[in-house]
Amino acid sequence: MNQAELKQPPLRRLDVDHRPSVVLGADEPLRLACGVSLGPFSVAYQTYGSLNADRSNAILVCHALTGDQYVTGAHPMTGREGWWPRMVGPGMPLDTDRYYIICSNVLGGCMGSTGPRDIDPASGRPYGLGFPVITIGDMVKAQAMLLDHLGIDQLFCVIGGSMGGMQTLEWASRFPERVFSAVPIATAARHSPQNIAFHEVGRQAIMADPDWHGGDYLIHGTHPARGLAVARMAAHVTYLSEGALHQKFGRHLQDRKVFTYGFDADFQVESYLRHRGSTFVDRFDANSYLYITRAMDYFDLAAEHGGQLAKAFHDTPVRFCVISFDSDWLFPTSESRAVVHALNANAANVSFVEIESDKGHDSFLLDVPEFFAILTGFLNGAAQHRGLTQA
Amino acid sequence: MNQAELKQPPLRRLDVDHRPSVVLGADEPLRLACGVSLGPFSVAYQTYGSLNADRSNAILVCHALTGDQYVTGAHPMTGREGWWPRMVGPGMPLDTDRYYIICSNVLGGCMGSTGPRDIDPASGRPYGLGFPVITIGDMVKAQAMLLDHLGIDQLFCVIGGSMGGMQTLEWASRFPERVFSAVPIATAARHSPQNIAFHEVGRQAIMADPDWHGGDYLIHGTHPARGLAVARMAAHVTYLSEGALHQKFGRHLQDRKVFTYGFDADFQVESYLRHRGSTFVDRFDANSYLYITRAMDYFDLAAEHGGQLAKAFHDTPVRFCVISFDSDWLFPTSESRAVVHALNANAANVSFVEIESDKGHDSFLLDVPEFFAILTGFLNGAAQHRGLTQA
Repeated sequence: MNQAELKQPPLRRLDVDHRPSVVLGADEPLRLACGVSLGPFSVAYQTYGSLNADRSNAILVCHALTGDQYVTGAHPMTGREGWWPRMVGPGMPLDTDRYYIICSNVLGGCMGSTGPRDIDPASGRPYGLGFPVITIGDMVKAQAMLLDHLGIDQLFCVIGGSMGGMQTLEWASRFPERVFSAVPIATAARHSPQNIAFHEVGRQAIMADPDWHGGDYLIHGTHPARGLAVARMAAHVTYLSEGALHQKFGRHLQDRKVFTYGFDADFQVESYLRHRGSTFVDRFDANSYLYITRAMDYFDLAAEHGGQLAKAFHDTPVRFCVISFDSDWLFPTSESRAVVHALNANAANVSFVEIESDKGHDSFLLDVPEFFAILTGFLNGAAQHRGLTQA
Repeated sequence: MNQAELKQPPLRRLDVDHRPSVVLGADEPLRLACGVSLGPFSVAYQTYGSLNADRSNAILVCHALTGDQYVTGAHPMTGREGWWPRMVGPGMPLDTDRYYIICSNVLGGCMGSTGPRDIDPASGRPYGLGFPVITIGDMVKAQAMLLDHLGIDQLFCVIGGSMGGMQTLEWASRFPERVFSAVPIATAARHSPQNIAFHEVGRQAIMADPDWHGGDYLIHGTHPARGLAVARMAAHVTYLSEGALHQKFGRHLQDRKVFTYGFDADFQVESYLRHRGSTFVDRFDANSYLYITRAMDYFDLAAEHGGQLAKAFHDTPVRFCVISFDSDWLFPTSESRAVVHALNANAANVSFVEIESDKGHDSFLLDVPEFFAILTGFLNGAAQHRGLTQA
């Protein structure tokens, strides 16, 4: 595995310095599932806590569709808290006094890892749709190259929710010897047709925006912000449960007592969605949204193993903790159960918990005490088996 | 009630002749919920079967969001079948040998009833967003004026699914003496925050399209077809169940055996959605979509009665048959149950059926034999009570 010198791609508009970042695949490029060889490419990452002497306490956190490597602490672009602030830190479930936490921006992303915003060396212009389509497997392979660079042979744990859970399953399936334990959360071993449909709506919203310019908006000096905001709004509805929407907003009006009989955001839920859409476009790249949703759509672990999910985990040595949330209708418990059945068919070491929460798919990002307790318990047990001493 | 002469608005691009249509409110305008007085205005409608001598066999069919008055037979604009072809006709549940079926295009629509595409007499230009926001109550009041025009005092039945069910509930609540029986299907007495959220996504998609021009696209000679297509696609996903999507499409690819690793419609479900979006824009007006979704959002029968739904049906003489479908997650059975509870609190005459169907919200438009059987049975019973002789 080649490890090139740390090298930054040129800073772009809206970009900040996403160090640390490493250039990989300079000598031996990454062979992507689509057939393209990519390299050199950058992977930007963050670490929290310290790697122990025998390099056995590393946890790889895999981020979701619109997440990034800034798991906790202030985000350098938005100034807001990372996406898992109560999960990662001293004394928290992913205890930084005990574990070495790594999170890297996925390939195809827009936070410092190579993606469609970057300059295509072949043309000297931003890739746009010239960027190769990547898969969950490609993301995981790039993460494995990062671990090589960091000198970590085996992860104590790989963990993630939603698309992060897909990467977790892919890690356990592709590199079982490099994964001691795995926690796929609110996820599935293949993207359902309903979820593909929702993604397609978002992509069409982006591509319908004239500012998208066939993906070449950087060259045109534009950004398809309106289309991207609509995509984000459509997706956001699917992240919440109906119960959460009732509880949070009901039919309450926003800063008014009567209907305006117009198309302003009369209802709080409208105002909330518009806010979610408009803040998102400041921190995310529209083409990355296309590429990452596509990677999720393509994910189908069983299909890669002759249609049998059990074969994806043949004789796996990995210890699993599979977690779902009962109000999550985007990645319902039935999807997690399918994974558990496949693991059981291999007599794998697996615990499975469906957690009660009325917060929908977003539960995995929120404060759900039972979720934290279960995770802490599982990691404690796994740490004991791994021989990790208490800090 | 004033009944003006039949008069056609000028034909517009893409429009066909939507006769019969009647001009109402010429002398006494319709006072809308928003406070605006509208009149004269047109209502376009279709009838099927014959009105009997004592005018007691009329059934008002209320159409859904993107429906229209062409319930059965060839649609004059698309040439395709109407939206309820196996429900309305000789020997069918709404038996045209026995009943006189009326369906009118809702106020705010785009099939001949006055809506935002029409010329604002005050400005001589198309209304656009200058059209007053209408409510489900306004739609029903306009229908009542049409019935006055047709000389029908009491409907044997009012029936509709989804937004048509909202109109059905509004009819029973507002004009109980004019409704002998009512069949609200796959509907709710108020639009849920989740459904408002999905509507808002669709509206934002339309309004994000530069061809929308603040609603004045007719003046600009454009049509926000891309935005409207995205809105339709987003909505369409919510009309189907996850099971139906699995059964219909699964993860099957469209006309190919391997991924293209691109953004074409690789999956059948994508191709289907794109088709649904692109055919819709040929037959529907974008501003009408804004207005009609808004009418649904505003619907809240309990709120109009001090927060108590039971009061909306105080001492109702109407016979109800409330129908839901178990795979409908847009208007789930719990919404129908709330209506039934309110009716029970009035000791109303109500039957309630949750029908098993894996087809989601769209079930009410599809061939579901149990649905047809229940409807036929209910109407037969009601006809007996009403003294309608068998044809």
